[in-house]
Amino acid sequence: MNMETITDNLKKNLRVLHQYTATPGDGTTRLPFTKEARAAVNHIRIMMEEAGLEVREDEAGNIIGLLKGAEPSLPAIVAGSHFDTVTNGGDFDGLAGIMTGIEIARLFKQEGAPLKRNFIVIGFCDEEGMRFGTGYFGSKSILGQVTQEDLRHYKDKDDISIYEAMKGYGLVPENLPRAAWDLKTIRAFIEMHIEQGPILYQSGEELGLVECIVGIQRYIVTVRGRSDHAGTTPMDMRIDAVEAASQVIAKIPGWARKKGEGTVATTGFIKVIPGGMNIVAEEVQFSVDVRSRNKASIEDIVAKIRDSLDEACRRNGATYTMDNKLTITPVDLSRDMLARLENHCKSRGYTWRRMISGAGHDALAVGQVLDTVMVFAPSKDGRSHCPVEWTEYGDIAKAAAVIHDLILEMQ
Amino acid sequence: MNMETITDNLKKNLRVLHQYTATPGDGTTRLPFTKEARAAVNHIRIMMEEAGLEVREDEAGNIIGLLKGAEPSLPAIVAGSHFDTVTNGGDFDGLAGIMTGIEIARLFKQEGAPLKRNFIVIGFCDEEGMRFGTGYFGSKSILGQVTQEDLRHYKDKDDISIYEAMKGYGLVPENLPRAAWDLKTIRAFIEMHIEQGPILYQSGEELGLVECIVGIQRYIVTVRGRSDHAGTTPMDMRIDAVEAASQVIAKIPGWARKKGEGTVATTGFIKVIPGGMNIVAEEVQFSVDVRSRNKASIEDIVAKIRDSLDEACRRNGATYTMDNKLTITPVDLSRDMLARLENHCKSRGYTWRRMISGAGHDALAVGQVLDTVMVFAPSKDGRSHCPVEWTEYGDIAKAAAVIHDLILEMQ
Repeated sequence: MNMETITDNLKKNLRVLHQYTATPGDGTTRLPFTKEARAAVNHIRIMMEEAGLEVREDEAGNIIGLLKGAEPSLPAIVAGSHFDTVTNGGDFDGLAGIMTGIEIARLFKQEGAPLKRNFIVIGFCDEEGMRFGTGYFGSKSILGQVTQEDLRHYKDKDDISIYEAMKGYGLVPENLPRAAWDLKTIRAFIEMHIEQGPILYQSGEELGLVECIVGIQRYIVTVRGRSDHAGTTPMDMRIDAVEAASQVIAKIPGWARKKGEGTVATTGFIKVIPGGMNIVAEEVQFSVDVRSRNKASIEDIVAKIRDSLDEACRRNGATYTMDNKLTITPVDLSRDMLARLENHCKSRGYTWRRMISGAGHDALAVGQVLDTVMVFAPSKDGRSHCPVEWTEYGDIAKAAAVIHDLILEMQ
Repeated sequence: MNMETITDNLKKNLRVLHQYTATPGDGTTRLPFTKEARAAVNHIRIMMEEAGLEVREDEAGNIIGLLKGAEPSLPAIVAGSHFDTVTNGGDFDGLAGIMTGIEIARLFKQEGAPLKRNFIVIGFCDEEGMRFGTGYFGSKSILGQVTQEDLRHYKDKDDISIYEAMKGYGLVPENLPRAAWDLKTIRAFIEMHIEQGPILYQSGEELGLVECIVGIQRYIVTVRGRSDHAGTTPMDMRIDAVEAASQVIAKIPGWARKKGEGTVATTGFIKVIPGGMNIVAEEVQFSVDVRSRNKASIEDIVAKIRDSLDEACRRNGATYTMDNKLTITPVDLSRDMLARLENHCKSRGYTWRRMISGAGHDALAVGQVLDTVMVFAPSKDGRSHCPVEWTEYGDIAKAAAVIHDLILEMQ
């Protein structure tokens, strides 16, 4: 296996796909069912065909390449990731995993087709959910989890539904159920992805083997007080929404730290109404995003937030509501494949770390129902979802090598 | 003294001036140097003349009515307040004090001109500072505290300077220095005003005798952290601006409560950048408004905020700046006049409370250099600066009665 060739191929392929962006000069913006997505998919099709794959686009807009094995009735192994990006994102998030799959297929061809099982490379459509506020569209579609109602319900900022967007893209939305796979025909799913966080880059390890994708609960909390003059209203006659809200917000990070196991909790959004410097706040809205590999830790932090809101509101007379915006159950990835990947890292002399993924991925959807594993490559400075997103091509090549070894071993 | 007549006059006059608003149907909006201000001043002039006053408009746009006393060389007594309002304000804030002065002048006329001293009723221009972000324009002008630079420096949202606005209103800005009074010719200033807070309304007392107008310090604090992915960045690798800021914001109200003496502290504005639910905050801006009759209490709370910011930022690596936006020194009002007003309340059988003013007033500017006192009437539900602002006309009449008694006593 010539690592230099693999690295060069990955570099060439990722760089050429950089052109399919709606924001040239300001990162990659490739939203689903757009002309940038169409152009990228057409180019990925060519890359897959050059690697020797039989290519088709499914009813969800996923691009799928097949390398037939010697015993095609055996359950297949699938590798891939997504081809859409966030607005002003980078060149690696998603695409790196598809290019890795294509490169592995090329290696298998070059090695004289050593596979018994079919090997499938997949490029998923709309993992980010940037356009319609959803996400995991392509991966949920192969699992048969997207309904016709979903297609009409979710709309973009121009009020275009997924249904309309699919039609405009050349798909037949009514045919979406045909995208669903018979899961018995699939042995495992393997996703290479960039870490999008600082852990590998800071520790210096070459690869991350992902044991678990965290669960998420996300809420918008609204605390309602009473608007009053900040000068003429004594402290004991106020119902200050900022006071009640800030007492809770201040405690949330500490609760996450105490849980450990990579548990994180974030308030990234705060809105104060009316927001005048000399007006006691009538209302505060704030977000809470709690993630952990341990569902009980998430639930406990959410309970603590409720208790703390109860207490803060009881003290000053405010009221609150807490609206759930997202609930995702943590997914444990395949212990068996993780152990095998560790052995392949050892054999090749790569350093690695077992870690959890704090971001969602197609593997989060697929991992709920199929044996799944993820391999991370380091993100420079932990940056992602921005134009400076960067991962060394050589690190992606290392991920390709150990995934190649894993697939060979699982024949 | 016929209290019913006084009440009716106040009611009639305040109601008729309600028409001079830029927002009919949505409260009173009478910004300085506008056609609404011009029309209101013209009408106030007629009211003053009907009450027997010699009327002039000064070089700052203040409207001034004079009732000559028998010994006009004695220092005069001045009563009044302002005729401008905030946007979508009420009918009482400011005007009630001018109408009270006019009604007292009418009483003196009716009583056969019992005064030795001149009695001056003044309607100040631009106390609120709503249009140019300043305030106390008319009152500072009679004290000679407004410069030509100020006139050119402060501009409204349409980029019109005070200088230009004055010209458009028919004033000659260069003549502003002539508005300044010889302070030796003034014995005292008395301002009737609505409370704009809930204390009198809740306690049921009929009048508030103001011992002190609070000092204010106002800041915008900016806490700078680092923007990171809320899922992939472990708690101990974050510089979360919300975490540092909320720890400080949560403590501020408690510090104010501990000080007592009517000390208040308010965070009414918070802005989080970039503000995404799944992004660790890069920056938080928040306001702090601290008020107290005790300057040392304000300074101590500001010092506590700095210490707490130091500590919170040291803990997580954030930095901060704290920009002073306003500093006003507390003013103690005349003990002598307060004691006399108490006696007059007793004589007339009115209930009263000594209190502090948490809002600024023309008396805050004038009280720095002249013997000054304020009388408050209750604000329904403590509401002010809004269309539902309401004070009983009968309560304003009671304030007029005791101020009348005070002025008579001080001849």
